[in-house]
Amino acid sequence: MFENLNDWLYHPITQTLWQVLFAIIVYFIVRSVGKNIIKKVFDKKQSKQVSKARLQTLEKLLLNVFSYVLFFIIAFNILDTLGFNLGPVLAAAGVVGLAIGFGAQGLVSDVVTGFFLLLERQLEVGDYVTAGGVDGIVEELGFRTTMIRGFDGTLHYLPNRNITNVDNHSRGNMRALVDLTIPSGEQTDTSIKKVQAAIQSFDHPALVTKPEVIGVETNDLSTTVIRVIAKTESMQQWAVERELRKVIRAYFETQENDA
Amino acid sequence: MFENLNDWLYHPITQTLWQVLFAIIVYFIVRSVGKNIIKKVFDKKQSKQVSKARLQTLEKLLLNVFSYVLFFIIAFNILDTLGFNLGPVLAAAGVVGLAIGFGAQGLVSDVVTGFFLLLERQLEVGDYVTAGGVDGIVEELGFRTTMIRGFDGTLHYLPNRNITNVDNHSRGNMRALVDLTIPSGEQTDTSIKKVQAAIQSFDHPALVTKPEVIGVETNDLSTTVIRVIAKTESMQQWAVERELRKVIRAYFETQENDA
Amino acid sequence: MFENLNDWLYHPITQTLWQVLFAIIVYFIVRSVGKNIIKKVFDKKQSKQVSKARLQTLEKLLLNVFSYVLFFIIAFNILDTLGFNLGPVLAAAGVVGLAIGFGAQGLVSDVVTGFFLLLERQLEVGDYVTAGGVDGIVEELGFRTTMIRGFDGTLHYLPNRNITNVDNHSRGNMRALVDLTIPSGEQTDTSIKKVQAAIQSFDHPALVTKPEVIGVETNDLSTTVIRVIAKTESMQQWAVERELRKVIRAYFETQENDA
Amino acid sequence: MFENLNDWLYHPITQTLWQVLFAIIVYFIVRSVGKNIIKKVFDKKQSKQVSKARLQTLEKLLLNVFSYVLFFIIAFNILDTLGFNLGPVLAAAGVVGLAIGFGAQGLVSDVVTGFFLLLERQLEVGDYVTAGGVDGIVEELGFRTTMIRGFDGTLHYLPNRNITNVDNHSRGNMRALVDLTIPSGEQTDTSIKKVQAAIQSFDHPALVTKPEVIGVETNDLSTTVIRVIAKTESMQQWAVERELRKVIRAYFETQENDA
Amino acid sequence: MFENLNDWLYHPITQTLWQVLFAIIVYFIVRSVGKNIIKKVFDKKQSKQVSKARLQTLEKLLLNVFSYVLFFIIAFNILDTLGFNLGPVLAAAGVVGLAIGFGAQGLVSDVVTGFFLLLERQLEVGDYVTAGGVDGIVEELGFRTTMIRGFDGTLHYLPNRNITNVDNHSRGNMRALVDLTIPSGEQTDTSIKKVQAAIQSFDHPALVTKPEVIGVETNDLSTTVIRVIAKTESMQQWAVERELRKVIRAYFETQENDA
Amino acid sequence: MFENLNDWLYHPITQTLWQVLFAIIVYFIVRSVGKNIIKKVFDKKQSKQVSKARLQTLEKLLLNVFSYVLFFIIAFNILDTLGFNLGPVLAAAGVVGLAIGFGAQGLVSDVVTGFFLLLERQLEVGDYVTAGGVDGIVEELGFRTTMIRGFDGTLHYLPNRNITNVDNHSRGNMRALVDLTIPSGEQTDTSIKKVQAAIQSFDHPALVTKPEVIGVETNDLSTTVIRVIAKTESMQQWAVERELRKVIRAYFETQENDA
Amino acid sequence: MFENLNDWLYHPITQTLWQVLFAIIVYFIVRSVGKNIIKKVFDKKQSKQVSKARLQTLEKLLLNVFSYVLFFIIAFNILDTLGFNLGPVLAAAGVVGLAIGFGAQGLVSDVVTGFFLLLERQLEVGDYVTAGGVDGIVEELGFRTTMIRGFDGTLHYLPNRNITNVDNHSRGNMRALVDLTIPSGEQTDTSIKKVQAAIQSFDHPALVTKPEVIGVETNDLSTTVIRVIAKTESMQQWAVERELRKVIRAYFETQENDA
Repeated sequence: MFENLNDWLYHPITQTLWQVLFAIIVYFIVRSVGKNIIKKVFDKKQSKQVSKARLQTLEKLLLNVFSYVLFFIIAFNILDTLGFNLGPVLAAAGVVGLAIGFGAQGLVSDVVTGFFLLLERQLEVGDYVTAGGVDGIVEELGFRTTMIRGFDGTLHYLPNRNITNVDNHSRGNMRALVDLTIPSGEQTDTSIKKVQAAIQSFDHPALVTKPEVIGVETNDLSTTVIRVIAKTESMQQWAVERELRKVIRAYFETQENDA
Repeated sequence: MFENLNDWLYHPITQTLWQVLFAIIVYFIVRSVGKNIIKKVFDKKQSKQVSKARLQTLEKLLLNVFSYVLFFIIAFNILDTLGFNLGPVLAAAGVVGLAIGFGAQGLVSDVVTGFFLLLERQLEVGDYVTAGGVDGIVEELGFRTTMIRGFDGTLHYLPNRNITNVDNHSRGNMRALVDLTIPSGEQTDTSIKKVQAAIQSFDHPALVTKPEVIGVETNDLSTTVIRVIAKTESMQQWAVERELRKVIRAYFETQENDA
Repeated sequence: MFENLNDWLYHPITQTLWQVLFAIIVYFIVRSVGKNIIKKVFDKKQSKQVSKARLQTLEKLLLNVFSYVLFFIIAFNILDTLGFNLGPVLAAAGVVGLAIGFGAQGLVSDVVTGFFLLLERQLEVGDYVTAGGVDGIVEELGFRTTMIRGFDGTLHYLPNRNITNVDNHSRGNMRALVDLTIPSGEQTDTSIKKVQAAIQSFDHPALVTKPEVIGVETNDLSTTVIRVIAKTESMQQWAVERELRKVIRAYFETQENDA
Repeated sequence: MFENLNDWLYHPITQTLWQVLFAIIVYFIVRSVGKNIIKKVFDKKQSKQVSKARLQTLEKLLLNVFSYVLFFIIAFNILDTLGFNLGPVLAAAGVVGLAIGFGAQGLVSDVVTGFFLLLERQLEVGDYVTAGGVDGIVEELGFRTTMIRGFDGTLHYLPNRNITNVDNHSRGNMRALVDLTIPSGEQTDTSIKKVQAAIQSFDHPALVTKPEVIGVETNDLSTTVIRVIAKTESMQQWAVERELRKVIRAYFETQENDA
Repeated sequence: MFENLNDWLYHPITQTLWQVLFAIIVYFIVRSVGKNIIKKVFDKKQSKQVSKARLQTLEKLLLNVFSYVLFFIIAFNILDTLGFNLGPVLAAAGVVGLAIGFGAQGLVSDVVTGFFLLLERQLEVGDYVTAGGVDGIVEELGFRTTMIRGFDGTLHYLPNRNITNVDNHSRGNMRALVDLTIPSGEQTDTSIKKVQAAIQSFDHPALVTKPEVIGVETNDLSTTVIRVIAKTESMQQWAVERELRKVIRAYFETQENDA
Repeated sequence: MFENLNDWLYHPITQTLWQVLFAIIVYFIVRSVGKNIIKKVFDKKQSKQVSKARLQTLEKLLLNVFSYVLFFIIAFNILDTLGFNLGPVLAAAGVVGLAIGFGAQGLVSDVVTGFFLLLERQLEVGDYVTAGGVDGIVEELGFRTTMIRGFDGTLHYLPNRNITNVDNHSRGNMRALVDLTIPSGEQTDTSIKKVQAAIQSFDHPALVTKPEVIGVETNDLSTTVIRVIAKTESMQQWAVERELRKVIRAYFETQENDA
Repeated sequence: MFENLNDWLYHPITQTLWQVLFAIIVYFIVRSVGKNIIKKVFDKKQSKQVSKARLQTLEKLLLNVFSYVLFFIIAFNILDTLGFNLGPVLAAAGVVGLAIGFGAQGLVSDVVTGFFLLLERQLEVGDYVTAGGVDGIVEELGFRTTMIRGFDGTLHYLPNRNITNVDNHSRGNMRALVDLTIPSGEQTDTSIKKVQAAIQSFDHPALVTKPEVIGVETNDLSTTVIRVIAKTESMQQWAVERELRKVIRAYFETQENDA
């Protein structure tokens, strides 16, 4: 059939065979190179925030995805070389891909947000946070979901995309604030002095700065609201507030009885 | 018509026939391979969360979809080989596909969310949860819809995409919390002591930790609200709260009568 | 013009004619096959939820759509074979199609949702449901619209896409719940006993479980709210609640008069 | 220039001329056929919901749109045959089309919704409806806008896309509902009997079923709210409610005076 | 270089020159035809709602847009004929166009809505309307913005897309409605008669129908609210309501003094 | 290598060189023409609303963008001529462009809105406006952001896209409105006369029309609310309202003392 | 194989090799030029708002992205030259890119907004701002996230896209505003004079303008609310308000005691 080498070399069938062979060789080279790169990237990342088990799961997942994608590309190329019209397949895959893509948009959004939450350490396990309309202690940080334990015992599962503003109450000291409504019929100055006397010797292990009377908060001349604030360690602000209320009440009640 | 083999081999009509034949062979190979893969994947998955019946339905569905898709691809290829211009068909199918895709976006979203709800076991049948604005006991978990039975007997059907934040009240102990408004005219200390006396011997089979008075919650000096909290088993918090209220009321009423 | 058969066979004009002929034959085959498939699918489906009349309408519609689509595809192919550039037509049709598609998105969404509402039997004619912000008895289920009759007589037309969460109040027994505010000045125990006495012999044809006093619901020591619950047949909960209120009131009023 | 017929027949310029001629012939055929189809469709539709004037406007509009679209397609084809590159024009038209399409999305949505509102007869002129946040009597139904006359005289123009849920208060009898707050200090039974006595001989031309006392609606033992309901003709429920209130008040006031 | 006419005629460079020449001729023809059409369309439209000045602005704008678009298309064609690859330019223009298109979506939407507001005469200068959350008298109608003067003197600029529901209070008579709270201690009948007496001789130049007592609006037996309604000319309802209130008050006060 | 001129002229390499040369020449021509056009457009626009400095910034920006875009187009063309496949580059650029486009959508929207705010003079520096939920005096108008100084001293930065409805309180006179609650126990007529007497000689430099009593605003017969309105210069309405309140109060208090 | 130079020069394989070589050369040139440009741009920008460390991170990132993108483009070109069909790879990459693009839209939006927040200096570290529903002192400005420390100690992480309106309370003096409710039974004039007397000698280090009584704010003749305003340095308005309240209260209380 082939009278000389040139004919044979440039004969369509020979060329097709060469191309198929070439594609297969490229496949094996790219595959082994790609796998090694993925493995090395994961080896470097090992001593970070995410647990080792989760990293291995992720590595395995990536390796699988990479192998499958590569396989399909090579297979497509070979089929194409053999004269198959893969347009319809691609078009169909595209439409299905778009449909799934739209539906799975939330999923991608979860993972992207989750990645930045971890990277910027906005949340850490054990932090007391308000996020996505939920209040509580972070129990677990995931790529898709964050678990927060509410104070009433409820376990909240939040898809990460729902977490936009994070209010982290465990990053520094908190303020204890008590707004006292004083029964009317007393001079403002006297009330302020009484409150100051009541909190003078106040102490609490979680106090960072001593409580202070910062002034009158009401505009109505017939009622008096006096504000007391203090700085406390995180999560101890409520205990300090309760203690402050108790101490001041006791002082006022003693005064009354004495009078 | 054909003077030699070469002519015959590279004659357009012969080539077309070869290609059609080749396409049909590929069709049967891919089909049987694909079907086997689907079946094996489902055989492995058999001992998991989802019931066997549902898995079989899903398997059948997938096999059908796979067969139809494959058939259409091969049919398109053959028609294309025979010289048909399938551009318009593809374009029309694309527009229709997009239109349906947009409309069915919610459906895909349901299935994707449903899949992760099952995978991450955020909800399980029998859990008491708050999700998608609905409160109740999970009755059934589906790929598209979750059924929750409300406490008033209503059966809520929630498309899974509506379930974003899941508040699971059955994952650990719950807190019973009672905020008592004490009638004025009593010293705060006395009130606190009375409440402590009232709950000292309190017991309930669902109690996890004993109830505790944690302090005064009001800022107004003329009214007193005292907070009592306890840890209970899940779903028993309301019973414990009611019991606590009853016990403390009884104690206060006895005291009054004695006075 | 044609010196031999080969010339004639591969002459452009002959080929064009062959292709047109072939397209027309394919048209008639595909059309009759497609129509038969549609008819058979509908014959199988006949004994289901949707009425026969509606199915026939749907079948007719599908047959029409199929015929028109097929006709246009073949016509396009023939015009294309005759050397017409149909790119602009397709592009124009695509833009118009997209425009309509966006506008009609809601329509597709209605039909997809409606299909699942029927399939999952979330709603049935005669059910008392809350859906899409509307409360009432389902009067008709359509592919695009659901009709719900409100209790005040209003007929609500809901496009199905507006129905996301379905609260079906006709799937099981309902709870009757009465929260009684007892006038102050009575011991809690006495009140509870009185209510228990009042409902001891309570009966109602729709009762499923006897009414029970489950405890005190108020935190304020100076007011008493007692909760009574019972299980009743669906739709009878309000009648039972009213009856319970009447019986307990009568009991309390008699007691007062006696005292 | 042309040595024989064949040369002439397959010469590029001749072919171009043939194609232009062919395009023009096709143009006139398609145009006259299309116009006839549109006219026939409209002739059949004449005896329906929409007024004749509006149908003629619509027909004219469609004929114009069809002629222009056809003209542009043929013109494009001829220019293309003459060797013009119309890609840029098409691309530009596409971008402009998309831009307008996005902006006009609401318009398409109006027309699609309007079409179904008419088809499903959800609204009819003269109905008392609540739709799109507006309450009143339907004055006009249009393809883009619905006009509703509010009870205070305001004319509301609603783009149809704003009409999702339609609450039609003119499809059947309506309920008249009166919740009477009885002054305290009276036995519940006595109150119920008085109300029953008051409405015993109540009559009103719009009554469908006689008014009935259905029971006590309050949980607080110290106040009494009694519910009376009746069925009336549509739009007469308020008159009946007012009449009921007047009759019962008169009865109670007479009783008091007598006592 | 060219040995005969045929060579010269079909030589690539000659053909290119012919095409460029042809394009330029087409440019001048299409331009003058297009401009004439635009001018004629505007001449016909002259006697309508929009002022002449605005029409001329619009005409000028359209002529400019048309000239520029045509120029670019011809320039592209010539560059393309000369062998330039304009793909990148088109692609870049497309992306920029899409970006601007998305951003300018609101603008297109404004113009489309504005067009229909004018066409359907939903708003006219001087009308008292509620639209887009704003209440007042229409001062100017524009293609992009509508100006409404609020009753407190504020000038509201509304982008037309914000105008969905239009509540036009100047299309017909309005209702004056007064809900009178009668001090308790009087029989309902007596009150109604007093109010009727008070409004018997009531008159006001803007009255369309005489005021009427339509009945009792309260369910509570111990308070009485009587509703009086009348029809008035548009914009006069508040004056009539104030006058009605004054007249009835005066009547009641005189009665009291007499008693 | 080239045996005659024709060979040389139509030789691929020569053609490539010609095309590159041609592209470079076109580049320099288009660049200088484009730059001149931009400069001229800006020279004409100089005496308008926007400051000169900002215009120069804008001009520089446009010149830069134009140069870069032109450079890339020519570079692409040359690379393309040299046989480079720029498809992937374009595709990648397209995807990146779309991604940025979506993210920057808000930015484009800001600029488009800003342009119309300036063009239609809806806002001017020094105006008192309500826009985008913010109340205050406009301090600066930018293409992307508008700065408004609130009355409490806060500086509000509003991205222009947030400005939809603009309520401009500095375009004409404003209304001063006082709703007086008269203590009960006085005849309505007497109260109205008193208020009229109180405001008879009222004057204020910002008054545009004298204050007027327009009537009674309450439905409850036992309380009286009288409305007084006046027209004032913009921004002076609050001062006038305060002054009116002071004058009427003084009048009522004097009357009481006299009585 | 090659009989003369021409054959060799235009032989497909030779051409392929030339093209590959050319691509590699272009790669190295573009890479080194691009890197230099990036480095120079960053050297110029060094003395600006953003810290040096962050700039270096950004530079490194950009250099990496540039190198990878360039590498992929060249690699694609070479593979394409070697006869590989890269369509499927590009299509797949496109779909994946779009999916990620949609998910990462928020990210791009964050960066674009962040860039403008920095550029327009809307926020600076230490400013007291209200943005994205959060109130506090800016602690850190990032490209993706802004950190704001609330007054209760909470650290708020805001994705920049959530920051639309910025209310900056640290750009100029603030207003202190006190609305005093005066106990009734006093003439308005007397009250105003008392308040004026009370604040006459008022001083505070943060005062910018002296406090002024601006008038009466209530419409009800039986209650009196007097407004006092002053200008203070930023962040000191609350302290001044509290001091004002204290001073005025003291004055009123002294007056009472004297009386």
